[in-house]
Amino acid sequence: MTHGKIQPWLVLALALTTLGGTAAVAREDDAMLGFSPAGASTQRGLEQRFDAQLDPADLRSWLKQMSSAPNQVGAPHDKANAEFMLAKFREWGWDAHIETFSVLYPTPKKVALELLGPKPYTAVLAEPAVAGDATSGIRDGTLPPYNVYGGDGDVSAPLVYANYGMPDDYKELARRGIDVRGKIVLTRYGGGWRGLKPKLAQQHGAVGCLIYSDPHEDGYAQGEAYPQGGWRPAQGVQRGSVADMQVYPGDPLTPGVGSTADAKRLALKDATSLLKIPVLPISYGDATPLLLSLTGPLAPDSWRGALPLTYHIGPGTAKVHMTVASDWGQKPVYDVIAVLRGSTAPDQWIVRGNHHDGWVFGAWDPLAGNVALMAEAKAIGTLVKQGWRPQRTLVYASWDGEEPGLIGSTEWAETHAAELQKKAVLYLNSDTNARGFLDAGGSHSLQHLVNQVADGVTDPETHVSVRERLRAHMLVDGYAKDAKPEAKAIAKLAAEGGDLPIQALGSGSDFSAFLEHLGIASLNLGFGGEDDDGGIYHSRYDSFDHYLRFGDPTFEYGVALAKIAGHVALRAADADVLPLRFGDFSQQLDRYVSELHKLVDSNRKATEQQHRLLDAHAFALDADPTRSVAPPARDSDMPAIDLAPLDRATQRLDQSVHAYQTAFDKLAAAGFDMPVAQRQQLNPLMAGMEQALTDPAGLPGRAWFKHMIYAPGMLTGYGVKTVPGVREAIEARRWDEARRYAVVTAAVIDRYRAQLDRLTAVLNRRP
Amino acid sequence: MTHGKIQPWLVLALALTTLGGTAAVAREDDAMLGFSPAGASTQRGLEQRFDAQLDPADLRSWLKQMSSAPNQVGAPHDKANAEFMLAKFREWGWDAHIETFSVLYPTPKKVALELLGPKPYTAVLAEPAVAGDATSGIRDGTLPPYNVYGGDGDVSAPLVYANYGMPDDYKELARRGIDVRGKIVLTRYGGGWRGLKPKLAQQHGAVGCLIYSDPHEDGYAQGEAYPQGGWRPAQGVQRGSVADMQVYPGDPLTPGVGSTADAKRLALKDATSLLKIPVLPISYGDATPLLLSLTGPLAPDSWRGALPLTYHIGPGTAKVHMTVASDWGQKPVYDVIAVLRGSTAPDQWIVRGNHHDGWVFGAWDPLAGNVALMAEAKAIGTLVKQGWRPQRTLVYASWDGEEPGLIGSTEWAETHAAELQKKAVLYLNSDTNARGFLDAGGSHSLQHLVNQVADGVTDPETHVSVRERLRAHMLVDGYAKDAKPEAKAIAKLAAEGGDLPIQALGSGSDFSAFLEHLGIASLNLGFGGEDDDGGIYHSRYDSFDHYLRFGDPTFEYGVALAKIAGHVALRAADADVLPLRFGDFSQQLDRYVSELHKLVDSNRKATEQQHRLLDAHAFALDADPTRSVAPPARDSDMPAIDLAPLDRATQRLDQSVHAYQTAFDKLAAAGFDMPVAQRQQLNPLMAGMEQALTDPAGLPGRAWFKHMIYAPGMLTGYGVKTVPGVREAIEARRWDEARRYAVVTAAVIDRYRAQLDRLTAVLNRRP
Repeated sequence: MTHGKIQPWLVLALALTTLGGTAAVAREDDAMLGFSPAGASTQRGLEQRFDAQLDPADLRSWLKQMSSAPNQVGAPHDKANAEFMLAKFREWGWDAHIETFSVLYPTPKKVALELLGPKPYTAVLAEPAVAGDATSGIRDGTLPPYNVYGGDGDVSAPLVYANYGMPDDYKELARRGIDVRGKIVLTRYGGGWRGLKPKLAQQHGAVGCLIYSDPHEDGYAQGEAYPQGGWRPAQGVQRGSVADMQVYPGDPLTPGVGSTADAKRLALKDATSLLKIPVLPISYGDATPLLLSLTGPLAPDSWRGALPLTYHIGPGTAKVHMTVASDWGQKPVYDVIAVLRGSTAPDQWIVRGNHHDGWVFGAWDPLAGNVALMAEAKAIGTLVKQGWRPQRTLVYASWDGEEPGLIGSTEWAETHAAELQKKAVLYLNSDTNARGFLDAGGSHSLQHLVNQVADGVTDPETHVSVRERLRAHMLVDGYAKDAKPEAKAIAKLAAEGGDLPIQALGSGSDFSAFLEHLGIASLNLGFGGEDDDGGIYHSRYDSFDHYLRFGDPTFEYGVALAKIAGHVALRAADADVLPLRFGDFSQQLDRYVSELHKLVDSNRKATEQQHRLLDAHAFALDADPTRSVAPPARDSDMPAIDLAPLDRATQRLDQSVHAYQTAFDKLAAAGFDMPVAQRQQLNPLMAGMEQALTDPAGLPGRAWFKHMIYAPGMLTGYGVKTVPGVREAIEARRWDEARRYAVVTAAVIDRYRAQLDRLTAVLNRRP
Repeated sequence: MTHGKIQPWLVLALALTTLGGTAAVAREDDAMLGFSPAGASTQRGLEQRFDAQLDPADLRSWLKQMSSAPNQVGAPHDKANAEFMLAKFREWGWDAHIETFSVLYPTPKKVALELLGPKPYTAVLAEPAVAGDATSGIRDGTLPPYNVYGGDGDVSAPLVYANYGMPDDYKELARRGIDVRGKIVLTRYGGGWRGLKPKLAQQHGAVGCLIYSDPHEDGYAQGEAYPQGGWRPAQGVQRGSVADMQVYPGDPLTPGVGSTADAKRLALKDATSLLKIPVLPISYGDATPLLLSLTGPLAPDSWRGALPLTYHIGPGTAKVHMTVASDWGQKPVYDVIAVLRGSTAPDQWIVRGNHHDGWVFGAWDPLAGNVALMAEAKAIGTLVKQGWRPQRTLVYASWDGEEPGLIGSTEWAETHAAELQKKAVLYLNSDTNARGFLDAGGSHSLQHLVNQVADGVTDPETHVSVRERLRAHMLVDGYAKDAKPEAKAIAKLAAEGGDLPIQALGSGSDFSAFLEHLGIASLNLGFGGEDDDGGIYHSRYDSFDHYLRFGDPTFEYGVALAKIAGHVALRAADADVLPLRFGDFSQQLDRYVSELHKLVDSNRKATEQQHRLLDAHAFALDADPTRSVAPPARDSDMPAIDLAPLDRATQRLDQSVHAYQTAFDKLAAAGFDMPVAQRQQLNPLMAGMEQALTDPAGLPGRAWFKHMIYAPGMLTGYGVKTVPGVREAIEARRWDEARRYAVVTAAVIDRYRAQLDRLTAVLNRRP
């Protein structure tokens, strides 16, 4: 596939675009947040000089080299990549070093899987070389497909198919009288984070767990398989971590502290983020004979994938035998840290990171994002050589060990926690990157900054601004007949013109420790949505050749990411007043609290409806007696949940925000002209705002997660839960906990408000 | 599969069931509609004696015999079945005869299909015998799978995949720059009536049309294929008519009049219900090589079926060659008509019908329903022998030629139109039947009658009343997470207790001529919803052996259908006052008019949204330049649509209904004690009410369809469109027509109201 030619209707669009009404036309006339008019003009000049340094050829050459050999944790090329970057950062004028941690990182000694019984089958568990993919035949230094941090085991047991292996799926199993105790659970990828599948299987008594990629989500149903197209071939496998990162990420043996040489480490048996049962990721090629062996109840409609067979739940008559034996040794992770000290505010840090470890060759994940970060560092280095210095300190980091559990970033953040909480202004993350639309998530106080930056960068394919292309995407997404309510809500906001909403962050990349453990305002940025990356995610086919065909053939989106992330970093580094807008956060928080009210209402209605139907025996009477599907288990009664503490706290915050914004606007109108002492008081106070949203006791059952507004869901994994203490308690019907966390969360909102009031007081203090 | 055993939780349910609140507990204390208390008691006794005559063994033996050989129109066994029934009806004491019509019925002389090009493939176009199905090997007298009333043709052309081949699918093709002119269109079953697929293909310039059964809807994705399970095997084919029955059903050469020997017939070329292009139904076995040959754009997500391949739209490099050559001769259809003359009101007819022609052996469709009708006739015969006579005349009919186009019923109804419009009180239809839930559709004035009857018949599996089991089904259907708005609305009505809603009728069985052409209040009844019939519909595997495993193994649901239909017929035959309740109709009509208002509103919003997005070039900016998907064509502006005539007419009707019901209740309280003359005036007036809803000019472009409230959708086929003149005009953006039919429909509602007022006057006339 070539990059395609521009369509005639697109050319027209370029000339005429006025998305979202007149309010949305290029907003460069908006005052640049945190800058005086003169400062903004200077900053724009700086950004133009920065942009001029970005060369797609650099990204392509770095990507090719860094993805030329296996680069998972412990692989020689992973270390070589770190050293390569170290040399580059230094060459570009940065003060760089490698910070090494020693972490638990099991690697497989033996993995095996076979179907016993009358039609025996031995699983391939390997990805063959394919034509036209130069690295696909490299075996040296690669590991067999596996799920890191699964347990060791050698078990033979009946097999049960459990769909995505999520909580609702176990409810369906129960209704069909299927118990997974003593069995091996076969799950498919999708529906929630990978690591939850074996965790829930283990909780339900299973002795092993398999996770396969069904072609419905990830294979020929989506598009031609690799190498004909970009999608997962029959023997492609999605590797990945199954550590219980919702409890704590990072080295399983050092929760909350850095895995330095002298760190106190847990015994293996005490590491609560480790699974006990063996887990294996498998291909749909290997899953097919297993699925065909199952009898028992027909799988519910929504459980059916795209394999040409009738999906049954099982068990069948044949058992499955699986073996996982690992080397549970320590391995080194190499974080590359490059620093450019700020001239006037060196103790305010802008931290920018992307990881460099992959699962095999890692061209898409993570190197496509990592080379954008490198391009930024090179361009900034040139600016420095031209005489510029940032006002604040820039810290550019290329993390190791993200794949097994956000390890490099977490251990570094834990090691430097105190200093980061004092100095870090924001953390700016990226990961994979490809053609398409800007995907921006993060702290909502950064929403306006991201919007202003995205408004000033041109989309490579359409030549409108990145923001206006994203607006078009949001509008069209919400227009589709089968659009989900969330997509419709986003489209409604996008149609208003002005700022586009950014998503709240859950987990799945290196921002977790910064945002959710330390309370540092964070952003996660990347392009995508036009690509076929689903097909090679975490497989040996995540290669330079694949990326060149299906990712970002011209590396223009790599450059676009470097511009977006670079401009954010530069504005944060040089702004008179930090480019945060707390009103965006409070407005978004109001939406979250309103969602909680709706959740309580809909939960109550659903409970009442379920009870009515159970009391009337409707499920029993509706059931086909030839297919045993019992009524659902009765949900607990739903008492009143008092959300008034949250209502009051958010109302108070809204009032404080109003006062703050008035004061801020006055200062902005004055070109941020203020005494140095005032500025020195103002900015650190602003930088610390996000930390006010943390509670030292953390979330229920997972004290590592201290942010009370954003967290990865315990039962979604990567997916965010906002106001998680309250929301997850309601969803899990833990009523006391919901009430308790309504109070706890209201308290952090009050603390945030109090700090905002202090900020307002500083702003209003005129000489 | 055996019939299964009753679950313990079900036994509990039997004892305790109180669905829908106390209001819904057995409602036999409700006054039986149209009967005095004494009359009701007598009627219950009659029904018990009727029920006692129903023997599952009869149904089984008739079904086995009648499905033992091919019985499509023109087959010797189809005639033999008619003669068998004639003998039986006479044996049971009915005045029976066979009424024969001569109709156009093409049969294939040659059908062929091949893929040309580098990977040639010749389609099988035949269904092999399967183990355990005694009739599946019979070739004698069967026809190859074909679509009756498709054109003849021998064409070679490129192939394009068009999903369901419905209007929205052509919009998607257009956005991808795919033109079907001069091409053969490959469609899959589903999404709308079969006959619309070639009709729309022809309208878009295609030279041929293929229709295949994708395993996603109809094959292994739903359950194991036959004979392992009940679902469509790889070479199973769905035959069926592709006459344009939305314009007029029946013999294509005699629209509006009976195909009697001397009827004036159209020339073949003037028959507007006939297609010009050749059409073939094919299996997924035959469709696979065709789909694999396609290149071009990737099919949109919702177009993808369950075959193990990547669905493309095409065309490919290889052409397809298809041939259809038919014998366009006349064939006889044999309607069996059995009459039991009424004792006191012989000129009021209760007409009950089911067809007897199948596509091959037709065990499910139609014989499962037909043997219930026979059981009713036998039981009624016994009642007669015991000395009972109906007050009104019963006409039991077994139609021929339903499959090609509702021919037997339509030609009979057209032949006897004047007499039927004078005498027919109601038409009561059934077709296929199997285990599950009562599916009742029809005129809403019959809703209360059906509910009362369903309340008095016990469901064979759960032993609660048929009505309460249906209520449970509606409640559970509406409870599902992904329940559609219609299912939720039905569940809401069901939860109120009392009467369950019945569905409006579109088409697809023999009620069309009675209801939609003549304006006779009609019902369509059947059980189903627990079966696997999808898999063998209109194939050679629709056999006695299949039915015995997957349909109704004990024939208890055949007996249940006979009870429901029999009780309806007997109550209609013997009621003092006809068991119609016009308030149910007016209430439902209010809902339809309210739906139209919502349709106008949502259409306006969607139009405005689409225009906003087009004006902003959102589609162009959102599009992936490597995949050519143009913006949608701009919808026409939406002017104001005046629905006030409908609002006023329904409001007036509601007032009249109130007065009528008051008068009726008074008469009911008096035990329907009235002079004979009054009764003789009352009942015919009531019977004629439904005809007031017809307009002699009929619907736009299809004058045969005269009912202004119920019609099959021009673009849905079987699916109903209520208030069709207005609704379809709005959906198709024909604004003038919408306004015009708001007035036309208001006029029939006014006529209905005027007749109701006359009825009220008769009711109020006390001696």
